[in-house]
Amino acid sequence: MKIVFKNALVVTMNETMDILKSCDVLVENDRIAAMGALSPEQMDKAKVIDATGKLLMPGLINGHNHAPMTLLRNFADDMNLQTWLFEHIFPAEDKFTGEDVYWATLLGIMEMLASGTTCFVDMYFFMDEMVKAVAESGIRAQLSRGVTCNDAGPDFSQDKKLNESIDFYKKWHGAADGRVMGAFAPHAIYTCSGNYIRAIRDAAEKYNAPIHVHVDETRVEHEDALKNYGKTPVKYLYDLGLFDLRTIAAHCVWVTPEDRLLLKEKGVSMVHNPSSNLKLASGVAPVAQALEEGLNVMLGTDGPSSNNNLNMFEEIHLAALIHKGSALDPLLVNAGEALRMATVNGARGIGREDLGVIRPGNKADLIMLDLEKPHFKPLHNPVSALAYSSQGADVCMTMVDGRILYDHGSFPTLDREKIFYQIDKACARIFS
Amino acid sequence: MKIVFKNALVVTMNETMDILKSCDVLVENDRIAAMGALSPEQMDKAKVIDATGKLLMPGLINGHNHAPMTLLRNFADDMNLQTWLFEHIFPAEDKFTGEDVYWATLLGIMEMLASGTTCFVDMYFFMDEMVKAVAESGIRAQLSRGVTCNDAGPDFSQDKKLNESIDFYKKWHGAADGRVMGAFAPHAIYTCSGNYIRAIRDAAEKYNAPIHVHVDETRVEHEDALKNYGKTPVKYLYDLGLFDLRTIAAHCVWVTPEDRLLLKEKGVSMVHNPSSNLKLASGVAPVAQALEEGLNVMLGTDGPSSNNNLNMFEEIHLAALIHKGSALDPLLVNAGEALRMATVNGARGIGREDLGVIRPGNKADLIMLDLEKPHFKPLHNPVSALAYSSQGADVCMTMVDGRILYDHGSFPTLDREKIFYQIDKACARIFS
Repeated sequence: MKIVFKNALVVTMNETMDILKSCDVLVENDRIAAMGALSPEQMDKAKVIDATGKLLMPGLINGHNHAPMTLLRNFADDMNLQTWLFEHIFPAEDKFTGEDVYWATLLGIMEMLASGTTCFVDMYFFMDEMVKAVAESGIRAQLSRGVTCNDAGPDFSQDKKLNESIDFYKKWHGAADGRVMGAFAPHAIYTCSGNYIRAIRDAAEKYNAPIHVHVDETRVEHEDALKNYGKTPVKYLYDLGLFDLRTIAAHCVWVTPEDRLLLKEKGVSMVHNPSSNLKLASGVAPVAQALEEGLNVMLGTDGPSSNNNLNMFEEIHLAALIHKGSALDPLLVNAGEALRMATVNGARGIGREDLGVIRPGNKADLIMLDLEKPHFKPLHNPVSALAYSSQGADVCMTMVDGRILYDHGSFPTLDREKIFYQIDKACARIFS
Repeated sequence: MKIVFKNALVVTMNETMDILKSCDVLVENDRIAAMGALSPEQMDKAKVIDATGKLLMPGLINGHNHAPMTLLRNFADDMNLQTWLFEHIFPAEDKFTGEDVYWATLLGIMEMLASGTTCFVDMYFFMDEMVKAVAESGIRAQLSRGVTCNDAGPDFSQDKKLNESIDFYKKWHGAADGRVMGAFAPHAIYTCSGNYIRAIRDAAEKYNAPIHVHVDETRVEHEDALKNYGKTPVKYLYDLGLFDLRTIAAHCVWVTPEDRLLLKEKGVSMVHNPSSNLKLASGVAPVAQALEEGLNVMLGTDGPSSNNNLNMFEEIHLAALIHKGSALDPLLVNAGEALRMATVNGARGIGREDLGVIRPGNKADLIMLDLEKPHFKPLHNPVSALAYSSQGADVCMTMVDGRILYDHGSFPTLDREKIFYQIDKACARIFS
């Protein structure tokens, strides 16, 4: 199977941020096979997609999500975090079934594909159903059973959630032609005991699996750690040995300069979730400093009930704006840096060197944007235009593993009407 | 001419924030004639638009813009304000011709119509050409010749720019069936002398015209005023008598509590421009406080070279997010308040009680959004969905004065290809 994108403006996202005009890109099966002027042999039997007036770039990687929370989108907003979580979100989640999670994940995947996301990092529950949604839709994801437990331990060999995590990883890591990647996910230090985190860490190490964890999201979490453990959340997790494994640390809003040294030492990737951190009033993460210090900073939406969307272009936009405004420095987090967070840095965070950049040999996880819109005129600088002018809806084509999953409003692998119907049905039950 | 929107979800933006399900809205000529269940007589000879699965709301009012700066969109970003302005923006603007401004305004209008803006407040130069673009396109605007002058005065009777302002107002206020509204626009206290501001103020008073002015945008402006005049920018303009006239004060990032009392006393509307204030690192305006104190706060994009788009849904989104995040209070600027800033408060700022709310008798400045998209599912709360989940591109129809100006990607009054062509041509000359 060969597909040629003909005459595209290619934003490669490679190290030198090359932008190639009138460039052809050849996709063979699941990989980018060639770029530039193609020979007749290379073009032979290829399906040609005219990309004139279109921009081609790597698919976006959403570094932190709870996709099934689409069911709770715009359900409870503009309220205190504790009220939101304990009076609205948790009681509603208690009513979720596996089937709900399946349809809600598909809804989230539709939204992600339509706004240019080709891979997402998630932790939730009913993981078999999430895997099913990822496998069927064709998207790529790093998934994990998010676990909470405040038991004392030290023996967790019979712990239900830990065993679910292990079973999940053994069963599904590498599934769907490698599109499903597994991880272990101790939810956070305020929902897991230290012994439990260590038990999860040891299990993950045994399977050579990575970690996905919430870290230092709120001031309360930060201050409680200082009070309860005499150290910051980062130092606490560092001392538990969690960061010896490849770790994605979501939020990191309140991390100190010393914390960032520890994160850097261990190669931990932090995930910036600007919409969620602003909306829930968690604060503004020290992203400019982290980038300056050479940390790998990914970008994420967080769940759609604290955002309330899964549109990574909005996160890119926010990442390029809020640090300038809050620190009164217009040179912080430039357009290219914001885009890298959503592409190459995301790929690095999930340990994939074959994603996040358009270059021969890499996976064909690509998106195309329609430039023939007023907000892209004139196009003085495509990188600035992507960060400051674009909308998720500019995406007109999304490809994962060489397969087109979104094409000008249609979803070849998904039944849009059926998903909408099932979501309405689930909500009628959950919110009755 | 009668148009009926059949079966819409209507977000009225009235005082009680009524949301009407399966509601019909009758437009007769330029006005909303009726709402609710319509009689056969009312429906007689009406063009019927099926609004099932669509949301109808008042058109958005962009409270502060320099639309022709589309020509400089993404031209110079991620740099210091002074470098940006003096080394890049001003030299380029010096090369603008009236024809450039005409085409650049049309480009900006296209973008505004496609993202739901039906009225904008602007100050720029080559105003005859801006009026022409507004008149031809069908959009509504409050326009003013932005003037700068540091002469000492006191006699400005021969001043070219002041006389241009007067001529502009006399010639064009009320033009195009009242869609063009005039104003006087002393640019800012750092570009106009006190005597000059007073001369403009007096001229505006003579014609009973309103004022549009930049106020307290940056810390430098604030501190310079304290140093040079011994008072804040707001107190300085207050003492000059400027605020005795109906005034739209753009930015107000650094206003003090005492300043806000003065603004409130005079009924000055402040315009929040979150993207621009963040991108240029001006800061975060005290919007939550101003709303709490009962000031009229409008919402704007500022010019497309400091934003870099004219998409008011992004500004609504930012307004609902950044105050929560920067003040660590999730209750600040809720979704409804952010929407009001872009609708009713905008209407109040330009002195129009017949805009900004869907109710019989008001002008038919309406927009329709397509709700059949994944990010609007489920639709627990339409107001939250508009503020937190929507994109400008969800707008599928924009009507001004009862006339459809944007319809699912097409612009009945504008020649898209010609505008794009002329913009390319102008840029080739300006940036050669």
